[in-house]
Amino acid sequence: MFEFGEDKPKEECGVFGIYAPTQEVARLTYYGLYALQHRGQESAGIAVSDGRSIDVHKGMGLVSEVFSDRVVDCLKGKMAIGHVRYSPTGSGLLTNAQPLVVHYQKGMMALAHNGSLTNALELREELGKNGAVFQTTIDSEVIINLITRYRQESLEDALVKTMLDLRGAYALVILAEDKLIGLRDPHGVRPLCIGRMGDGYCLASESCVLDTTGAEFVRDVEPGEIVVIDEDGLHSHQGFSEIERTSCAFEYIHIARPDSTIDQLSVSESRRRMGIELAREYPVDADLVIAVPDSGTASALGYASELGLPFGDGVIKNCYVHRTFIQPTQEMREMDVRLKLNANASVLKNKRVVMIDDSIVQGTTSSKLVEMVRKAGAKEVHFLISSPPVAYPCFFGIDTVKREKLIANQMGIEEIREFVGADSLHYISEGGLLRALGTDCVCLACFNGAYPIPVLT
Amino acid sequence: MFEFGEDKPKEECGVFGIYAPTQEVARLTYYGLYALQHRGQESAGIAVSDGRSIDVHKGMGLVSEVFSDRVVDCLKGKMAIGHVRYSPTGSGLLTNAQPLVVHYQKGMMALAHNGSLTNALELREELGKNGAVFQTTIDSEVIINLITRYRQESLEDALVKTMLDLRGAYALVILAEDKLIGLRDPHGVRPLCIGRMGDGYCLASESCVLDTTGAEFVRDVEPGEIVVIDEDGLHSHQGFSEIERTSCAFEYIHIARPDSTIDQLSVSESRRRMGIELAREYPVDADLVIAVPDSGTASALGYASELGLPFGDGVIKNCYVHRTFIQPTQEMREMDVRLKLNANASVLKNKRVVMIDDSIVQGTTSSKLVEMVRKAGAKEVHFLISSPPVAYPCFFGIDTVKREKLIANQMGIEEIREFVGADSLHYISEGGLLRALGTDCVCLACFNGAYPIPVLT
Amino acid sequence: MFEFGEDKPKEECGVFGIYAPTQEVARLTYYGLYALQHRGQESAGIAVSDGRSIDVHKGMGLVSEVFSDRVVDCLKGKMAIGHVRYSPTGSGLLTNAQPLVVHYQKGMMALAHNGSLTNALELREELGKNGAVFQTTIDSEVIINLITRYRQESLEDALVKTMLDLRGAYALVILAEDKLIGLRDPHGVRPLCIGRMGDGYCLASESCVLDTTGAEFVRDVEPGEIVVIDEDGLHSHQGFSEIERTSCAFEYIHIARPDSTIDQLSVSESRRRMGIELAREYPVDADLVIAVPDSGTASALGYASELGLPFGDGVIKNCYVHRTFIQPTQEMREMDVRLKLNANASVLKNKRVVMIDDSIVQGTTSSKLVEMVRKAGAKEVHFLISSPPVAYPCFFGIDTVKREKLIANQMGIEEIREFVGADSLHYISEGGLLRALGTDCVCLACFNGAYPIPVLT
Amino acid sequence: MFEFGEDKPKEECGVFGIYAPTQEVARLTYYGLYALQHRGQESAGIAVSDGRSIDVHKGMGLVSEVFSDRVVDCLKGKMAIGHVRYSPTGSGLLTNAQPLVVHYQKGMMALAHNGSLTNALELREELGKNGAVFQTTIDSEVIINLITRYRQESLEDALVKTMLDLRGAYALVILAEDKLIGLRDPHGVRPLCIGRMGDGYCLASESCVLDTTGAEFVRDVEPGEIVVIDEDGLHSHQGFSEIERTSCAFEYIHIARPDSTIDQLSVSESRRRMGIELAREYPVDADLVIAVPDSGTASALGYASELGLPFGDGVIKNCYVHRTFIQPTQEMREMDVRLKLNANASVLKNKRVVMIDDSIVQGTTSSKLVEMVRKAGAKEVHFLISSPPVAYPCFFGIDTVKREKLIANQMGIEEIREFVGADSLHYISEGGLLRALGTDCVCLACFNGAYPIPVLT
Repeated sequence: MFEFGEDKPKEECGVFGIYAPTQEVARLTYYGLYALQHRGQESAGIAVSDGRSIDVHKGMGLVSEVFSDRVVDCLKGKMAIGHVRYSPTGSGLLTNAQPLVVHYQKGMMALAHNGSLTNALELREELGKNGAVFQTTIDSEVIINLITRYRQESLEDALVKTMLDLRGAYALVILAEDKLIGLRDPHGVRPLCIGRMGDGYCLASESCVLDTTGAEFVRDVEPGEIVVIDEDGLHSHQGFSEIERTSCAFEYIHIARPDSTIDQLSVSESRRRMGIELAREYPVDADLVIAVPDSGTASALGYASELGLPFGDGVIKNCYVHRTFIQPTQEMREMDVRLKLNANASVLKNKRVVMIDDSIVQGTTSSKLVEMVRKAGAKEVHFLISSPPVAYPCFFGIDTVKREKLIANQMGIEEIREFVGADSLHYISEGGLLRALGTDCVCLACFNGAYPIPVLT
Repeated sequence: MFEFGEDKPKEECGVFGIYAPTQEVARLTYYGLYALQHRGQESAGIAVSDGRSIDVHKGMGLVSEVFSDRVVDCLKGKMAIGHVRYSPTGSGLLTNAQPLVVHYQKGMMALAHNGSLTNALELREELGKNGAVFQTTIDSEVIINLITRYRQESLEDALVKTMLDLRGAYALVILAEDKLIGLRDPHGVRPLCIGRMGDGYCLASESCVLDTTGAEFVRDVEPGEIVVIDEDGLHSHQGFSEIERTSCAFEYIHIARPDSTIDQLSVSESRRRMGIELAREYPVDADLVIAVPDSGTASALGYASELGLPFGDGVIKNCYVHRTFIQPTQEMREMDVRLKLNANASVLKNKRVVMIDDSIVQGTTSSKLVEMVRKAGAKEVHFLISSPPVAYPCFFGIDTVKREKLIANQMGIEEIREFVGADSLHYISEGGLLRALGTDCVCLACFNGAYPIPVLT
Repeated sequence: MFEFGEDKPKEECGVFGIYAPTQEVARLTYYGLYALQHRGQESAGIAVSDGRSIDVHKGMGLVSEVFSDRVVDCLKGKMAIGHVRYSPTGSGLLTNAQPLVVHYQKGMMALAHNGSLTNALELREELGKNGAVFQTTIDSEVIINLITRYRQESLEDALVKTMLDLRGAYALVILAEDKLIGLRDPHGVRPLCIGRMGDGYCLASESCVLDTTGAEFVRDVEPGEIVVIDEDGLHSHQGFSEIERTSCAFEYIHIARPDSTIDQLSVSESRRRMGIELAREYPVDADLVIAVPDSGTASALGYASELGLPFGDGVIKNCYVHRTFIQPTQEMREMDVRLKLNANASVLKNKRVVMIDDSIVQGTTSSKLVEMVRKAGAKEVHFLISSPPVAYPCFFGIDTVKREKLIANQMGIEEIREFVGADSLHYISEGGLLRALGTDCVCLACFNGAYPIPVLT
Repeated sequence: MFEFGEDKPKEECGVFGIYAPTQEVARLTYYGLYALQHRGQESAGIAVSDGRSIDVHKGMGLVSEVFSDRVVDCLKGKMAIGHVRYSPTGSGLLTNAQPLVVHYQKGMMALAHNGSLTNALELREELGKNGAVFQTTIDSEVIINLITRYRQESLEDALVKTMLDLRGAYALVILAEDKLIGLRDPHGVRPLCIGRMGDGYCLASESCVLDTTGAEFVRDVEPGEIVVIDEDGLHSHQGFSEIERTSCAFEYIHIARPDSTIDQLSVSESRRRMGIELAREYPVDADLVIAVPDSGTASALGYASELGLPFGDGVIKNCYVHRTFIQPTQEMREMDVRLKLNANASVLKNKRVVMIDDSIVQGTTSSKLVEMVRKAGAKEVHFLISSPPVAYPCFFGIDTVKREKLIANQMGIEEIREFVGADSLHYISEGGLLRALGTDCVCLACFNGAYPIPVLT
């Protein structure tokens, strides 16, 4: 499940939208963002619209830090969108917080974006030649400039034209005129689903949000689909003929909450099946299966059950690690992992242990973890990973590290095993992962470099 | 494990102390408090001493909010104590934050307290008659007034005399002169343990802190023992002849982190054994065992293993619930539990489920949880509790609710079952709990009203 | 001088710019804004440029609240611009704080504006038709959109073309490419002057800033002039042929600091001469001349000296009124003026008093003041005003109140006298004011409605 | 008047108290402190009492920063006291903010203190021997410990006994039981006056506060008098037979607001008379008289009128200097005075100038000022001081600098003249000052070392 740590890929964003004239849309958006907090802890924002005018409040920090009761009460309207963000590149400025709100020829518009465009620079340049000025460095500003420029036409036509210009991954929620709009790129890389609540509708990056806000799951937005919600209900427009669905595999492996279902596949169930596949590929004669919490837990349970091994809480997570804290000094550097995770000696003592994690990015955290588990008394530590080696950067909205820093790019499996200090190391195979997911329609680019959308590398 | 919620008992405090002239004592105390954060999220404080003068910084909020790098760097000394606090009674004022620092005839003194005195009012009155004035409403101020009054004698004698006056539960860390002192009440209700780090020592409410700060576990402070740490090392004084050890059973059931060991018993292991005892007392013919995370997890694993049933992640916790958030309005009241916990439908669908929680206080959260699990598809919900019914308030430092509000005080088991809406309900028996803990030397007063120390009821 | 009060016109902005590659430009801008604080207390911002990239920091509040040492140190570059703002219309949002910074086709640009456009809406509409989107409601965004659109041409040509489009009052400082630019509208309504500091130059709304930052006064920017400062020094371009200079008379009367000189006329001296003209127009047989501090002081001294009357500190100002404070409740409403000003009974007792203020807007403050002075013992209160009646709103950057609320719009002089409760009331005549200023080249629109630039009324 | 600057003595405190069961006492205290803000900008606090229980809110910063509407509304009661503080010795900690509130044998008590005890250390030691512990380093804690210890007796007797123990300067406001108490040391060094408001009474350090809050001046509290206000009205007790009144002369010279009257003498009037005495002692053949604002203004007006010379606004103060701001770096050090004060060239050019200031402490600011005035065009600068040379430190509540740093301690008049760079320098004589004040009953210790109360030097 949604892990925090320097050695994990980080999702950039979560989005939420709601159209519900009879309900407190800002407050419901607040709770929606609260349930999406794991997708971004850096900034949060909510924009509300009464169909004409749009109010917005944004700030740096957690949803609970950015919004007070008073602020939420001031945001009145019949529809709203919200956004949480993790900024990968240190560009963590309030200016870049979303939703982005603009005034243009036809009124106001607000937009929030999850994903990443691969032709943003080209589009900026072209727009710049036509006189556009930019006040941020975010893709949303490019997208909103395109939509408003095409807006001589109907809103739907403008959206279709915009989609023809965009290259990359995007799940968008938009407030325009008296409509709430959701759309997803033609490959459906980033998730977006639809819920019904009373006489209204909502849109969310993950289905767990619907449970939290009391909405009923309707369906996922389809790749390339434009969903328009207004007083006449929900309308679908195929903005783009679907090329080929390639949902992000990493959502299942690491990012999404286990209680979410994305494109008809339960995250929790898919992780359990990754554990089963690992057990089939690499059964270890061990006394105990443990997980690196939280995202390794479901896989570890699957592995343990498949082999009939006991599962134990061998690694304990500090519940408060999501908060930034004072970094250890150089002399205390070895302490950083210990502040987040601790080996539970009473469980590990004298055991041959299988430890399951969802991924290895740079390898430093893994090596400290293996050492910690060993020090706590484990006789053997077999390290199993529920994803193939991450060897390529993501250009579609997940921040990994630079390619040079990816350990799978620098070392072979045996070298990595030695580096992390495990008795054995096994990554799930691509085939095993696909079997666990039950589909080929996923993006595995970070494992095999086969980017479904052209990127500049 | 350390749960947050309106329907759970709340520990009031965690303490940490360190004597290590060659190390960064304030920074290590910061990390120690970080690992104790689950014991109190309301205020945090650190006092440092160079043997003569004491500096202190305290504030409202989480450790990571109260302390910045700059503040920690300013706290220089050779020893330090720290404190995190949850204030039960709305008296959450900065004035009441600890450690408490005073100037007195012999210099300065700082003190931090975990526990609760039962004769605090009497002592205040007596001290008042002798001219004492009080600026706070906390027990620490009473204790420090007693120590300083007896200080014509040696420090150790003053501490012994003070202990003769005190009635109730207390684990104390004190900076006085050039010494770090730890002491524990004669019943040893609240935990306190000793670690060695390099040429220094530290004291902590829980042993998991020692793992985090890189200290090596030495032993628990004994009931009634006064531990003095100075440049000559560690000295033990028996301040009070041990009456009878009665460690708090709720530390094992709910409060402490699973990776802590208290009075020689692993918290994680004790919870697993509670699950085993539950399985023996009340085996259910079910398809799945699930836990209310996090403190029910180890018990659920024990239960499942004992009966050979599968364990699943049927309830998912939002990692950010530790943060205060905007309360739902009256109309959204049913949402409060959903913001913290969510049922994982993909795991629960059509299953006969055993759900294990560590305790029921008022019962409202439990009833919403059972309903949530049922709505997510569970065919049957058998609700098992790893503690006996909580029917009496705690006077020794754990905040429950008023006795009238304890559901076990108002209803019989069958009524409670009906109230929470479970197919069946079973609490572990006192005998089962004692077997799981492997000792009779525990305080079970909140279950049976047999207070080991006289209280005013 | 720079007065604070609900019953005074409020200037919207002050600007500062500096080009000084060898100096700490951000820190000097900080001090420059500090000296301009009286022109706007709502928000403050500084943008620095190294010739290519621009950094900016903005915030709500006083300069001393928005900027810390650390923030100023982070702003590194060879040139900078800064801005302080008072927002008249409740639109006091961080979004609207200046300088505004944009990315466009040729790089980055930052702009800060003092004044107000009268054709902003038209320009927004036209730009909108050409695809522009706006993220703020400030004129700066319109101006920057025009400049960047004309930027296929040279920067200077783009500025000239932009000036042809703009209607209204504007004094601008701009960072573009490796240049600092200052420009003033063709009527020169709002002030802007040039200083030299070492090998660099600075631009400021008022000359008192030059004294503070240690710069030497060079000259005022001319109406319609574009001043470009770069590594080759200072260059002047006539952006617009001067139509007719009409400097804002209210700068002399009320807004500017007395130690500033604007368009060759000392503010302090001009106020003293207003007092002399008042004495000639309306000599009163009185015992004492007092001022409403601070902007009435110089006029009162002039009046007293012309008639050989004693001047006394009859009204004392609380030095801390610049801070927002808790508003009195309805029952305490009469307290609001007393919190800012107090009558000095020891000076006023049994005196026939001439009290000089610079203007009356709504009249409520004046009436409370007169009553206060009378209560303190004055036998007669003759109220003299160093400006003609304010009867028309300003569209050029000074916030008065709505025209309907201007007392001079609702009542004749005798009625106003009665309303404020003075024994006699005299406003300086337009002729007297022009004699005091020594020029006809001033905008008197707020007195006579003769707007030198077309406005939509 | 109330000046800010490193080169001026700084008053430590202002106090306010109110007993008015039918009024909003906390809000009125807020406005009272607002009017006393010039006496202390470091911390502020308000305590309210309903006759039994006392609530308090304190914080670092200006009154307007420490208190919000919400906070003031929460402070409910029938009487209140408030305090503003400037901490001289860098001990600017929240712990030391006042009022101090304690619980003791008879209930609660709150106390706020203006002044300084000279036997505080002795008293602390004695109290410590009897078991007292201290949590602050302020005199208030010593005083409150004494009062509560004597409280077996009646409150009035306890106060009398306490006064017998105290040595030094103190003006106190106290909330005890259902009474508001004001008292002043037997020499009456620090001011305290009484006002009536409706059916209630208030106490304040300065009479200008009464004007602000709408109270009517009744009289000054007498030296050694204890004033008790309760539901039966105002009662006076002579706590101590008056030894000899020695009001602080510096209140008149520099600290108090000109619109205050202390011990029957108007501050503004006394300053004007200091100017007249200066004119008689040292008439200069000059073209212009100017003041260092604000506290030199009244003296300069007196000087000018006595000699028939024109007065001009030759030095202008930045209204925002009360705010802490970023200190200039070493290279910009000469800028510090310019940030606060500016010479007004248009007034000074080619003039022979008399500049009047109220005091010289270290001399550095004066020398920069003289240089600034000269640079602005003054042909001659004659520097006249409305106090005798400050050569001795104050032990009664005003922070000057260490004795070694007082320029009058290191140099003769001629040397000082040379140091500050004036054409001539004259301090008012002690005789002249006494004539201006019209009484001998003042403390002149900082000028002549004749401390009316024994001090440890």
